[in-house]
Amino acid sequence: MPRYKAVVEYDGTAYHGWQLQAELPTVQGALELALEKILRQPIRVHGSGRTDAGVHALGQVAHVVADWSHTEEDLRRAWNAVLPADIAILSVEQCADDFHARHSAHSKTYRYFIRNEPTRSPLQRLYTWHISYPLDLSAMQSAAEAALGSHDFAAFGLPTEGTPSTVREILSVRWEQSAGSRVLEFTICGTGFLRYMVRSLVGTMVRVGSHKMTPEAFSRILASCERSAAGPTAPPTGLFLVSVDYDGDCRRRG
Amino acid sequence: MPRYKAVVEYDGTAYHGWQLQAELPTVQGALELALEKILRQPIRVHGSGRTDAGVHALGQVAHVVADWSHTEEDLRRAWNAVLPADIAILSVEQCADDFHARHSAHSKTYRYFIRNEPTRSPLQRLYTWHISYPLDLSAMQSAAEAALGSHDFAAFGLPTEGTPSTVREILSVRWEQSAGSRVLEFTICGTGFLRYMVRSLVGTMVRVGSHKMTPEAFSRILASCERSAAGPTAPPTGLFLVSVDYDGDCRRRG
Repeated sequence: MPRYKAVVEYDGTAYHGWQLQAELPTVQGALELALEKILRQPIRVHGSGRTDAGVHALGQVAHVVADWSHTEEDLRRAWNAVLPADIAILSVEQCADDFHARHSAHSKTYRYFIRNEPTRSPLQRLYTWHISYPLDLSAMQSAAEAALGSHDFAAFGLPTEGTPSTVREILSVRWEQSAGSRVLEFTICGTGFLRYMVRSLVGTMVRVGSHKMTPEAFSRILASCERSAAGPTAPPTGLFLVSVDYDGDCRRRG
Repeated sequence: MPRYKAVVEYDGTAYHGWQLQAELPTVQGALELALEKILRQPIRVHGSGRTDAGVHALGQVAHVVADWSHTEEDLRRAWNAVLPADIAILSVEQCADDFHARHSAHSKTYRYFIRNEPTRSPLQRLYTWHISYPLDLSAMQSAAEAALGSHDFAAFGLPTEGTPSTVREILSVRWEQSAGSRVLEFTICGTGFLRYMVRSLVGTMVRVGSHKMTPEAFSRILASCERSAAGPTAPPTGLFLVSVDYDGDCRRRG
């Protein structure tokens, strides 16, 4: 049977994360339910990995094996037609039989948005973390660079299912702010991430940005491998899975 | 008693518009309820005008007369503390006794966002109108320019309460698209607007943009003063009240 790779955008606000859960709305559950309506049989949707409750995606990747006799574009349209408004299939392409959304992935790129201004913004509330005190972008960048390369990130997250190791490799980190904007963007690319890792890194870097912690103290937390040493976990609203890369490139999207 | 001018941002998604309605959530109702919690008495909030159900605001203006003995900033903070997350007071300043949010307004600026790409975007769905077929921006700009100046806009909307005339004056119109963006922005400033006027203009201009109608036909609809001649009314999701101007300037915001 043919195998398809799909790129998925979703607003995570209404979902209890990616992964299927009995009785709770999840993104994987919604994708499978929609496919079942089209194909009239249960179909497993394999994602590149979980996103937590409330986390968004601009380019999550999943694969399915399905008995579909029409074109890729027909499958994309049919799937979108039955999906809810907060999930969309951006592309569908047939892929090799050995392609696996999770196992074949080389790296992933996440982006975190912080709205840094005194007053909260109703129109940004679902997609940013609002921080009212000023943040020092260059101090946060210094801290972030300590995470580059291979490290045991046990201080910043929990192991993922089936992978007890907490060692991960970070390929790039960048804090930036567009001229005149009050939104700070943190972009991180790595070959893999622990659960809560991006949000825990961001929450701890924000302590550096507010001068409650030095970049050196951030490095010491990383080296400690003590989960309790990290700062607070940033809220899920600001986090986006931007892309999953299968060719070894950390590409920018969104 | 002192009088205060407040600038208000809101996400209109959850509200049945600005104006107070019995038994239905409205922005005015939420603002009055919040003030009543602070001041322990009913307070009327006077807006610059209504926005319809689902329409957003980056800079709605309202005034209140209230027995408040602390600073303007204290009032702003207290009000924000009791408002829901989808409404925020951006600024509060004491104003002259003859200032009236509606009667003193010189002009208003609205902006409408269209997401113009084949696939709908879950993350933009609450704040744009998704149109999948290509739109001709310069044809829409030609149509828009026919609306400049004073006209009877009866074809594009309904009279507002207390003002039977359907003549309004448009000071500026601009369709634009940032490089590389799939979002079209229409910005319009005028001394006043009929009910549904911006959305009716946008819905009709989209017919011009898709070449179902010429800019000349758009001008003839305007001249006809026939409400039934206009194109469909664009959905409220894409519409933002950007600012209310009291000094005769059409300023850009957001």
